[in-house]
Amino acid sequence: MRPDRIQTTRLLLSCPDRPGIVARVAGFLADAGRNIIDADQHSTEQARLFMRLVFESAPESERAQLYGRFAAEVAEPLSMEHRFAEAGRLPRVALMASKEDHCLLDLLWRFRSDELPGEPALVISNHREHEEAVRSFGLPYHHIAVSQQNKPESEMAALELLRGKVDLVVLARYMQVLSGEFLEGLGCPAINIHHSFLPAFAGADPYQRAWERGVKLIGATAHYVTEDLDAGPIIEQDTARVSHRDEVGDLARIGRDLERLVLARAVRAHLEDRVLVDGERTVVF
Amino acid sequence: MRPDRIQTTRLLLSCPDRPGIVARVAGFLADAGRNIIDADQHSTEQARLFMRLVFESAPESERAQLYGRFAAEVAEPLSMEHRFAEAGRLPRVALMASKEDHCLLDLLWRFRSDELPGEPALVISNHREHEEAVRSFGLPYHHIAVSQQNKPESEMAALELLRGKVDLVVLARYMQVLSGEFLEGLGCPAINIHHSFLPAFAGADPYQRAWERGVKLIGATAHYVTEDLDAGPIIEQDTARVSHRDEVGDLARIGRDLERLVLARAVRAHLEDRVLVDGERTVVF
Amino acid sequence: MRPDRIQTTRLLLSCPDRPGIVARVAGFLADAGRNIIDADQHSTEQARLFMRLVFESAPESERAQLYGRFAAEVAEPLSMEHRFAEAGRLPRVALMASKEDHCLLDLLWRFRSDELPGEPALVISNHREHEEAVRSFGLPYHHIAVSQQNKPESEMAALELLRGKVDLVVLARYMQVLSGEFLEGLGCPAINIHHSFLPAFAGADPYQRAWERGVKLIGATAHYVTEDLDAGPIIEQDTARVSHRDEVGDLARIGRDLERLVLARAVRAHLEDRVLVDGERTVVF
Amino acid sequence: MRPDRIQTTRLLLSCPDRPGIVARVAGFLADAGRNIIDADQHSTEQARLFMRLVFESAPESERAQLYGRFAAEVAEPLSMEHRFAEAGRLPRVALMASKEDHCLLDLLWRFRSDELPGEPALVISNHREHEEAVRSFGLPYHHIAVSQQNKPESEMAALELLRGKVDLVVLARYMQVLSGEFLEGLGCPAINIHHSFLPAFAGADPYQRAWERGVKLIGATAHYVTEDLDAGPIIEQDTARVSHRDEVGDLARIGRDLERLVLARAVRAHLEDRVLVDGERTVVF
Repeated sequence: MRPDRIQTTRLLLSCPDRPGIVARVAGFLADAGRNIIDADQHSTEQARLFMRLVFESAPESERAQLYGRFAAEVAEPLSMEHRFAEAGRLPRVALMASKEDHCLLDLLWRFRSDELPGEPALVISNHREHEEAVRSFGLPYHHIAVSQQNKPESEMAALELLRGKVDLVVLARYMQVLSGEFLEGLGCPAINIHHSFLPAFAGADPYQRAWERGVKLIGATAHYVTEDLDAGPIIEQDTARVSHRDEVGDLARIGRDLERLVLARAVRAHLEDRVLVDGERTVVF
Repeated sequence: MRPDRIQTTRLLLSCPDRPGIVARVAGFLADAGRNIIDADQHSTEQARLFMRLVFESAPESERAQLYGRFAAEVAEPLSMEHRFAEAGRLPRVALMASKEDHCLLDLLWRFRSDELPGEPALVISNHREHEEAVRSFGLPYHHIAVSQQNKPESEMAALELLRGKVDLVVLARYMQVLSGEFLEGLGCPAINIHHSFLPAFAGADPYQRAWERGVKLIGATAHYVTEDLDAGPIIEQDTARVSHRDEVGDLARIGRDLERLVLARAVRAHLEDRVLVDGERTVVF
Repeated sequence: MRPDRIQTTRLLLSCPDRPGIVARVAGFLADAGRNIIDADQHSTEQARLFMRLVFESAPESERAQLYGRFAAEVAEPLSMEHRFAEAGRLPRVALMASKEDHCLLDLLWRFRSDELPGEPALVISNHREHEEAVRSFGLPYHHIAVSQQNKPESEMAALELLRGKVDLVVLARYMQVLSGEFLEGLGCPAINIHHSFLPAFAGADPYQRAWERGVKLIGATAHYVTEDLDAGPIIEQDTARVSHRDEVGDLARIGRDLERLVLARAVRAHLEDRVLVDGERTVVF
Repeated sequence: MRPDRIQTTRLLLSCPDRPGIVARVAGFLADAGRNIIDADQHSTEQARLFMRLVFESAPESERAQLYGRFAAEVAEPLSMEHRFAEAGRLPRVALMASKEDHCLLDLLWRFRSDELPGEPALVISNHREHEEAVRSFGLPYHHIAVSQQNKPESEMAALELLRGKVDLVVLARYMQVLSGEFLEGLGCPAINIHHSFLPAFAGADPYQRAWERGVKLIGATAHYVTEDLDAGPIIEQDTARVSHRDEVGDLARIGRDLERLVLARAVRAHLEDRVLVDGERTVVF
């Protein structure tokens, strides 16, 4: 009865809330002979409904027709945004990192250990030093130097490697701001880990600024990347306790563990199709 | 669209898992013109399905017939255990406490602040000292002395006050073991707060024993009361950090805050009909 | 051997760090026949030393002379800021609250339960509704209405009740901004609880803004009050997990528990003379 | 002024508590011209004093004499157990692991990133599959098969590699019970990570048993290894929240992150000479 024993499909949708939608969607799938295995829903005070259903996949040959009928008979009349995702198809993931390797290596280890339902495709870095470690995971490593002068060219070079080739980009402590053109050209979501409890300490040097403010907890935030720096919809956050004994370097050390965990949880939720964006907020089923 | 704006009914059910149940239940409610507002479900590896649905209540005059039809047409054929609960009907709650008042007063404050959807009905204690505080909340206070000699009589006196008159008994640091006869006679669930991270330190003096073992975290556990001491299904748990500097008295002090929070969360979940028992485990939607 | 068994004095000090200070201070007390029971110290990267020593009190008749000698022989030559505090002398504490009573009643309950080593002296509120509850704790309740017109007068009335009469003011969800003149006139520290993880969401309506930003944790911050709103040195913070299911009202409910705990811990640390201010930061031993 | 800028020595001691010990120890170091940089102390209710002092190291040529004088003049008369540890001398650490590699690789990564002040010396495993990963860290990998028949021989082979050659053995998910003879022969401490919140679920299959009991939090415990299985003094513990949706495999996955963090914190505290054993408890400064 559990999703991992049988082939399953995920249906994610959101639409204006009104009576009867759950029954309508469940009824469509039942009529099509698809058994619902898991269902989550959420209605906001703004009267928008979000749903995630997991059901036993249709035979491959019948899927196109089934999804087309759903679009025409259910989604269209209910002004629904929706997508079907096959659980068995592993999304391809690109990782980008700068100097620090803790998030990068942690994610690679988790992919290898089958903790993350995705397929790492390549690593891009503006530093050279992770090449050997990355190659030991059997992955291509692309060094793309970034300077103030060559930013457009370096983004173009990265786009060349990514566009149409991956389903997700993870910024695993990639310390370069990406332009709106890059994000638009990318054509797939990007998840970033910021080393603070956003919205506190957005921007540069969050640990230094956290230390100066004398906070008693530090945080980390994983969010979708938008053109506005550190302002995209938050997927996951966590905090850890610090004290007056912890200098900036200690905050960075304690923070590394937070960053690894928070980013891994966010990437996992995304790859399991559990995250729906609701304006500047997320629904994480 | 939110449950608190309109009159709602909760349907809780569990049954052997098989294809089509979600659609069947949702379809029944849709056919009856009942709009589903919230739905949670969980399938266990043991192939049992648990569900909680919240829907717009039927007019009062039609409820009996609707519920009867559901029993006959859906529950019976699917070997389903189920119950309907009207969200607007506040369950009556009895509180029992011994010497310590932190859980007792905390719950009374939460009821008064409308944090807990229930109606406190009475307080029973084997100590006299909380009488004034309890009466200031406008509640009857019953002192029932308990000794090794009079245990059956004291339980009988308590049963007299409780049986058929309340929907839930909360043992808010009530330090007497209740007999199987009492629990059976009660006819409604009882929730206890135990001052340890069960199953560690079940039984007497958990803080003393936690200190002796040198643990670095202490815990609290809210669970349904069964005949086996501290062994009933767990509803909620939490832990707090302690250090070598904390003596037994410090553990008790830190623990009081844990106990208040854990018990309040468990009582709230129960009163919102979010807890289903699955053998020795609970499903908390 | 524990501080609570014998009469103890606390010495708090800070000074430019240099070799030999620990030995110098410990040696002075040893020569004076005072047994050191507990000692904490912290050296910052900015080369400032903070210390808290607990020692067996001198006989009352000898204290003035002892403290004078320490000032002349140790503190003065080492450019030390310091103060002696007798553990047995309970500080007098005023509580100020507005509409919400959770922090107020929680602190009063903790004082009554001897969890907080201080003596509540009076309650001031710009609302009338807590009077009965406060008086049941045996405390005077002063209602001082505050409007945009009468702000200076209302602050003057509060100062009248506080100045020289209490050792600490706790703003237990007091929702009026206090002027610099008031704080200066007060002549003792004031601790505030802010219902966010500062520096995020300083100012008004933090739960509303946290909801809009879609954070996955909410926070509470206890800090010393300065003229800059929500910018004083932080004493204690904590966070709690929320999800997309939690509306603004749920954040407020979950936050109330955080606020109670965080404020109580901060007040306790202050009353035990564990907090030293280091610019915009605190050292909490 | 911070320990990492200058050469420092750590003095750890415990003795029966009595007046004047702090001044006596601090005075000895001051007279010897050694500047105290950090000091922590703890007095138990059982009247035992624990202390950790960090001071500027004596010139290497004078250390033996200084330490000898301390032993004769301070430690001996006060019935003190003590040891001096040079912060600059990195302890040699052996890692032992079985099938799971998460703790092993995490520690190796932390040693390489200079998060842990020690020098990994070798890895012993009863499985072959980590060899390549371990060798990529530049470390020798010793495979020692363990069966019910060859247990004494395999322990002997491990002792051969460890005795007198390392200062600490870390059981990074090493799933074989070590005999009392092995531990005695080892001659240095061993730290184990157990995948439960001890004392709950000591022994085999803790995640399975935690699932069956329906706990709402899982835990991990790092402790010194003694002959009694999972009963040694606890150094560090932590917990993580789980729900009815988490099957045994999910507990194991969530637990892996806990185990990594808890073990790393414990090893770090030990290598920084912050842990003193007090019977079945630890003092962790």
